[in-house]
Amino acid sequence: MTIRYPNGKAYRQPTHHNTSPSKFANVNFGDRGMSLEEELNDSNTFYLENDIAVIHKKPTPIQIVKVDYPSRSAAVIKEAYFKQASTTDYNGVYRGKYLDFEAKETKSKTAFPLKNFHEHQIEHMRKCMAQAGICFVIIRFAVLDRLFLLKASDLFTYWDRQTSGGRKSIPLTDIEKLAAELHYQINPLIPYLDAVDQIIG
Amino acid sequence: MTIRYPNGKAYRQPTHHNTSPSKFANVNFGDRGMSLEEELNDSNTFYLENDIAVIHKKPTPIQIVKVDYPSRSAAVIKEAYFKQASTTDYNGVYRGKYLDFEAKETKSKTAFPLKNFHEHQIEHMRKCMAQAGICFVIIRFAVLDRLFLLKASDLFTYWDRQTSGGRKSIPLTDIEKLAAELHYQINPLIPYLDAVDQIIG
Repeated sequence: MTIRYPNGKAYRQPTHHNTSPSKFANVNFGDRGMSLEEELNDSNTFYLENDIAVIHKKPTPIQIVKVDYPSRSAAVIKEAYFKQASTTDYNGVYRGKYLDFEAKETKSKTAFPLKNFHEHQIEHMRKCMAQAGICFVIIRFAVLDRLFLLKASDLFTYWDRQTSGGRKSIPLTDIEKLAAELHYQINPLIPYLDAVDQIIG
Repeated sequence: MTIRYPNGKAYRQPTHHNTSPSKFANVNFGDRGMSLEEELNDSNTFYLENDIAVIHKKPTPIQIVKVDYPSRSAAVIKEAYFKQASTTDYNGVYRGKYLDFEAKETKSKTAFPLKNFHEHQIEHMRKCMAQAGICFVIIRFAVLDRLFLLKASDLFTYWDRQTSGGRKSIPLTDIEKLAAELHYQINPLIPYLDAVDQIIG
């Protein structure tokens, strides 16, 4: 059964993908059958277990309305609603730095639509940067199977420009110039901290 | 006014405390009728709105089993369960530092029981500290209405000692020596970043 968010997006249980070594037998990383979220969770698990960084995806915020208690040990939530998150999805600590980021996918082959981000996420990243946090977005062009890490400061340029009549997306050609392209590996699957190293300097 | 979803169900606001200025008319801060979590959320909102720090409580992790779609805009979760968190409840960024902490209350008047913490929370804080994060716990003696900020490194001492036959709680007299006592204020209600400043130095 596919569970869907109010926006129609499928909800994926955090139940993990197959982590057996055979996962990598097929080197066609472009057809992994994992969502970007699962790929990042997998990468974060690698970073955590190898004492490289502590980065977690935040749980989906839920407004709980009704809970039943059939027994002490198993409270059942009977009525609840999805709430809009007030922050980005991922944060944590790496080499003494606070990291904060959002991950998004597009089916477009030519540009990344800014509507993938919400005003409150942009504001959250601005506030984190004001505290010297490292903020960025990981964006995936699903059809092209290309993955980039774009600094939040570069995202802000396009975000602010759209409000003064600018285009509502970031051209892929601009992303190629501004962002770090990430290439799938085995461990971690998405080695995004390599790009973070470049930002930290 | 009752806000309703398209399906007619009432939307209930997260039960916030009274935020009118009269809240502080009675200076008996010991009888605020707020939980420690609400007090910290209130303090974090103050820190956020005044550009002092960006600290959020993580949403409670939920395992979703069944969702109904009475309409496109109001998915209703009909069956879900509480999951154990794999991290602490609070994290964020302050003055370029990654902060990570847990908040707990006890009714004891003499000692703080270590069973309030879980092994995975201790492990999480150890991992964050290895990345140069600032980790601590905020503990409240509810009956005494006394509040302390204890560094995670001091907590670890007692945690590790209990596994080798040591006592299963931290005596209040030890906490008085090791921890920073926090005193309720108006804004923020719990000025815990003052104690964090002492840790950062």
